[in-house]
Amino acid sequence: MTENQKPRPDGRAADELREIVIEPGWSKQAEGSALISFGGTKVLCTASVMPKVPRWLMGSGKGWVTAEYSMLPRSTNERMDRESVKGRIGGRTHEISRLIGRSLRAVVDLKALGEISITVDCDVLQADGGTRTASITGAYVALVQAIEWAKEQKRIPASAKPLIDSVAAVSVGIVGGQPVLDLPYVEDSAADTDMNVVVTGRGLFVEVQGTAEEAPFDKRELDQLLELAVGGCATLSQKQSEALSA
Amino acid sequence: MTENQKPRPDGRAADELREIVIEPGWSKQAEGSALISFGGTKVLCTASVMPKVPRWLMGSGKGWVTAEYSMLPRSTNERMDRESVKGRIGGRTHEISRLIGRSLRAVVDLKALGEISITVDCDVLQADGGTRTASITGAYVALVQAIEWAKEQKRIPASAKPLIDSVAAVSVGIVGGQPVLDLPYVEDSAADTDMNVVVTGRGLFVEVQGTAEEAPFDKRELDQLLELAVGGCATLSQKQSEALSA
Amino acid sequence: MTENQKPRPDGRAADELREIVIEPGWSKQAEGSALISFGGTKVLCTASVMPKVPRWLMGSGKGWVTAEYSMLPRSTNERMDRESVKGRIGGRTHEISRLIGRSLRAVVDLKALGEISITVDCDVLQADGGTRTASITGAYVALVQAIEWAKEQKRIPASAKPLIDSVAAVSVGIVGGQPVLDLPYVEDSAADTDMNVVVTGRGLFVEVQGTAEEAPFDKRELDQLLELAVGGCATLSQKQSEALSA
Amino acid sequence: MTENQKPRPDGRAADELREIVIEPGWSKQAEGSALISFGGTKVLCTASVMPKVPRWLMGSGKGWVTAEYSMLPRSTNERMDRESVKGRIGGRTHEISRLIGRSLRAVVDLKALGEISITVDCDVLQADGGTRTASITGAYVALVQAIEWAKEQKRIPASAKPLIDSVAAVSVGIVGGQPVLDLPYVEDSAADTDMNVVVTGRGLFVEVQGTAEEAPFDKRELDQLLELAVGGCATLSQKQSEALSA
Amino acid sequence: MTENQKPRPDGRAADELREIVIEPGWSKQAEGSALISFGGTKVLCTASVMPKVPRWLMGSGKGWVTAEYSMLPRSTNERMDRESVKGRIGGRTHEISRLIGRSLRAVVDLKALGEISITVDCDVLQADGGTRTASITGAYVALVQAIEWAKEQKRIPASAKPLIDSVAAVSVGIVGGQPVLDLPYVEDSAADTDMNVVVTGRGLFVEVQGTAEEAPFDKRELDQLLELAVGGCATLSQKQSEALSA
Amino acid sequence: MTENQKPRPDGRAADELREIVIEPGWSKQAEGSALISFGGTKVLCTASVMPKVPRWLMGSGKGWVTAEYSMLPRSTNERMDRESVKGRIGGRTHEISRLIGRSLRAVVDLKALGEISITVDCDVLQADGGTRTASITGAYVALVQAIEWAKEQKRIPASAKPLIDSVAAVSVGIVGGQPVLDLPYVEDSAADTDMNVVVTGRGLFVEVQGTAEEAPFDKRELDQLLELAVGGCATLSQKQSEALSA
Repeated sequence: MTENQKPRPDGRAADELREIVIEPGWSKQAEGSALISFGGTKVLCTASVMPKVPRWLMGSGKGWVTAEYSMLPRSTNERMDRESVKGRIGGRTHEISRLIGRSLRAVVDLKALGEISITVDCDVLQADGGTRTASITGAYVALVQAIEWAKEQKRIPASAKPLIDSVAAVSVGIVGGQPVLDLPYVEDSAADTDMNVVVTGRGLFVEVQGTAEEAPFDKRELDQLLELAVGGCATLSQKQSEALSA
Repeated sequence: MTENQKPRPDGRAADELREIVIEPGWSKQAEGSALISFGGTKVLCTASVMPKVPRWLMGSGKGWVTAEYSMLPRSTNERMDRESVKGRIGGRTHEISRLIGRSLRAVVDLKALGEISITVDCDVLQADGGTRTASITGAYVALVQAIEWAKEQKRIPASAKPLIDSVAAVSVGIVGGQPVLDLPYVEDSAADTDMNVVVTGRGLFVEVQGTAEEAPFDKRELDQLLELAVGGCATLSQKQSEALSA
Repeated sequence: MTENQKPRPDGRAADELREIVIEPGWSKQAEGSALISFGGTKVLCTASVMPKVPRWLMGSGKGWVTAEYSMLPRSTNERMDRESVKGRIGGRTHEISRLIGRSLRAVVDLKALGEISITVDCDVLQADGGTRTASITGAYVALVQAIEWAKEQKRIPASAKPLIDSVAAVSVGIVGGQPVLDLPYVEDSAADTDMNVVVTGRGLFVEVQGTAEEAPFDKRELDQLLELAVGGCATLSQKQSEALSA
Repeated sequence: MTENQKPRPDGRAADELREIVIEPGWSKQAEGSALISFGGTKVLCTASVMPKVPRWLMGSGKGWVTAEYSMLPRSTNERMDRESVKGRIGGRTHEISRLIGRSLRAVVDLKALGEISITVDCDVLQADGGTRTASITGAYVALVQAIEWAKEQKRIPASAKPLIDSVAAVSVGIVGGQPVLDLPYVEDSAADTDMNVVVTGRGLFVEVQGTAEEAPFDKRELDQLLELAVGGCATLSQKQSEALSA
Repeated sequence: MTENQKPRPDGRAADELREIVIEPGWSKQAEGSALISFGGTKVLCTASVMPKVPRWLMGSGKGWVTAEYSMLPRSTNERMDRESVKGRIGGRTHEISRLIGRSLRAVVDLKALGEISITVDCDVLQADGGTRTASITGAYVALVQAIEWAKEQKRIPASAKPLIDSVAAVSVGIVGGQPVLDLPYVEDSAADTDMNVVVTGRGLFVEVQGTAEEAPFDKRELDQLLELAVGGCATLSQKQSEALSA
Repeated sequence: MTENQKPRPDGRAADELREIVIEPGWSKQAEGSALISFGGTKVLCTASVMPKVPRWLMGSGKGWVTAEYSMLPRSTNERMDRESVKGRIGGRTHEISRLIGRSLRAVVDLKALGEISITVDCDVLQADGGTRTASITGAYVALVQAIEWAKEQKRIPASAKPLIDSVAAVSVGIVGGQPVLDLPYVEDSAADTDMNVVVTGRGLFVEVQGTAEEAPFDKRELDQLLELAVGGCATLSQKQSEALSA
């Protein structure tokens, strides 16, 4: 932090993550699960293995990994109507579900999975910014457990290696002119630019989604944000390893 | 337990509840909340206060209390499709939401509440039988907190007494010929008769919903079940008091 | 009726049913049917036999019985929007459809039925309280006719006995402190407690659904209501027999 | 009937209506009603008066008349799924509802009605061909009663004359080369050309909807069909008058 | 035009069509297509061939032809909400889709088509009255191309003759007392009577849909309108031939 | 193009756009419109001005700009079901509608717009890759026209400057190891990485959405793609100016 920068609302350094807690195996019902917290954001991720694939993959020998994201109605500061009550899923929900699914598939060898499907549900119990990045990071942990379960159950050959890398995600943004890592709601709603970055354990990009909320951004700002994100994801990747080996 | 009765799968006595845990104030966002467990059944109950009432009550001086029940897709042993994805709410979900709402309203003086609404969301994180009775029992705790919050915020006059009693609920059933209290999934699915009973702190009935799943039942069996339920609710009522005074 | 009890709006004794009329075979199209009246409440019940079962029963050798309840938009005092126009079925409709289906299945031996389905539609043409209990009582008559039709058509073996008992239902409630039988709308909307009781021809309980609308109730009141209901259902059971043997 | 014409399945002459029965005031709840039968086709028509108009007419001084048509699931030979269960209204239902509404509005002076709405529900209890024409014919009777009720209730000035004519409808078609009146299902499904004609009491056309089901038709056939329809509607108009003056 | 008749808003004679432009093969993706203009009304018609039929035709040896009509949200003077956003298709859309489908099937020998389906989508890009008649007229052109494609692809035997006639449609109406052909929006909204007529190349009627918008009409007016329509369709039929042979 | 690079399927250079055609004012009905082609991709963009804002902006003095994207059912190689028929909007449609809206708002000063709304509909008539980027580029042209219209109509003060920059978008991707600009469907479906970039006339980023379809990408590849995109958008920006000044 340079001298003339304003401190962040929670006192963190610009490149510092919130407190990250990962509780693997939280659910007794699911084949894989993790309750993950990025500060006040809490997401329950559960992975379900099903012995069939979508129609377009039948007979292909390939498996499928997908995700569904949802927020509890009172995960937010003001209660939202349930999408089941409204009878339709909102655009934002669809968009995030698709993002999580793509991010997971980027590190899975679908051929090695064989013809099974894994659905990872990411239900936000409490929301304080970064729910999609916490979901991706927790979903990976649930996915690893589900794949291990499938190997134990001999649904995947013991020799198969469906996971080709790990994956984590973090938000970055420009707030008050300063690039910062892992924005809580109070920073997120004040950001000029907001970016969600999905990075593999090896440091490669899976998704880069940058949006100018208030002011378009230039290449230098983009580079600063990407650097912060890569650093944050490296730490998250380390947390995932620790949780899974615990 | 008479001598020739078979032991229950989890070794409990016929009139014994599962382990009951109530964590009040679990949510940082809601005006009232409780994470409640009846053994392996875990329900997150959050109460939201809104400064308006449904149209038919506008100008009546009366408030409203309602509830919405939902299960996470992987709260169960096999993953269920989300109702938001299906685009419609199932009959069972509607029925339980209505039951929870009626049970709460039975102990609330809506006139004393004034023209505000309280919605209690009961989201089942893990299901092992008795999700509706755990929801009612936890929802009451969240409701009490929300009413206290509304008093602190002067949305309800300090002198108002909107709560006229407390309320809790438990399932009872006849399994293998024996009346038992608080059925987990394994007993529930084998029961001849299944009954959900909602009882106030003073021991009065709010709802009695008995269903012959396999065999119609007679008056003597009904009386045995009601006696078990009244005893169980008295214990739950005590747990609610302890949680709220903690 | 004790001396100090107020007379009922329609002059009936507390334990007296409204005029019950059952017209079996009202529909020329359905395999079974009955137009049933409980006073001003009129329900058209039609039973349809289909040569297949829901997916989860295929190959089980068992049949299925289900019901759908609906109110015509102007069956009530004020016109309601159609659920088909609203695009979704309300909670109350779902709940009653499920109740009718369970009540019928309680007296059917699904194995003896074989792999056929019977759907009983209960469409309320005119509503004046007790629409769900009239529906159950009329649906049984339509069901019996449909089973007879299926035997004639040799869809069920002549020797099979799919009906193990008969079933009828009636509402009871506490109005102005007095337990009364078979409530019309004017009493129903003023009741402290409202109970729907489904009883077999042999006098066993299939469903007991008591709800404290205004004031929770005690065991003595519950017993009084159940006694009224058992008496009312015995009379209804007699009316069903007469209609079917006509 | 010329010598070489085949007799109709029910023995009627080519220009003969089925038995027409109109029971006005069938419903105790609605402001106007009629149970109408065209042979085996039975439709319950109820008219509801509401003291408001659709948004686009507010402040115009004009009223509105609309209709909703629906078939009970087992009004037909094979049970149909309910549109409320499917969650959407089919094209045919929409089309017929719109036709009935237009037909009624053709004989109503909306200015004389004043800013009230009348909705006529036409629910087919039993279907044997001609359900839309029976609906229009019965809906007119219910509408007349509802307008009389509104005058008695002083919702319409006593001096107002909202009805400028009467309206009835009938189906005609070419079956086996022969133009015939009022087709039951068995003829309707075998017709080469099917036409629904809506005619006022004065003999003017409101709707002419002719459809070549199997073979396109020429001007001479069209003229024959229209002549049959005008004759049939004159008889129906007479039946309406008798029913309303009874 | 008699001497005392008022000129039409666009100066046309009463029996004159608007400028008709047909661009066959507009789409590079569809098996058949046409962009058709009736003056300011522009409809894109695309025909899609699919190697399967609806369930009720499977194994019958017959094919199927169907149509879907839709308006772009800003094809009209005021933007309409999309039906996909509203989540349901309006009655008018359903009705017109069904009309187009029936009109096309009237000139197709479904047996000669064999078990394939052709869906013709008619999307209104710009609306100025007569969208349904332009749709039918353009849909026929797209259908002919699709059938030719299917023959080239050997999905239909080269010797088969699935087209038994051609089909076109036009609107006619009585505006200011005068029968006129092919009404633009400004005339359509002022018409006393509005009629859509579908006529084959041989001059036979497929559909006659006349509606009294303001005033019921008599037989003489009906005859005048039909004569105008038959003349207009003959011209349209000629334009279709020219477009297809270009 | 280095020597060992494979030529693109349509022979373009890696940094070359497809043929871009913009027809401003295509629609006679809308306040602004453009038919835009990126090669075989054709999108009709229409802008509608409405004198009201969404509820959350009422009284704020700010306007709103939003967009809706949709594909005609046969814009693609295989016919898709309409979302209106399915009764729900898919995730991809939602996501792209939101992207277009955000992109337009990034160059609009909502305060200067005043309390009016502009909805830009982007309907894909023919799809060959890059439909979302063509939509954004064409939507900007329609938006400019609509704002000019609003100024002429004095709905926006003549002195107001609601447009603070222009905006265009293009797809880039890595195909066969080579970064390429403006991918048609055949390249898009074979790309390892796919990125949509939205750039203002001044060269600033509004959105950067990069997705690893097959293989995660590194920072060097990201930089190459961004450079291609910035160049492509500069050309598109020039085409927009020419179209608007024509």
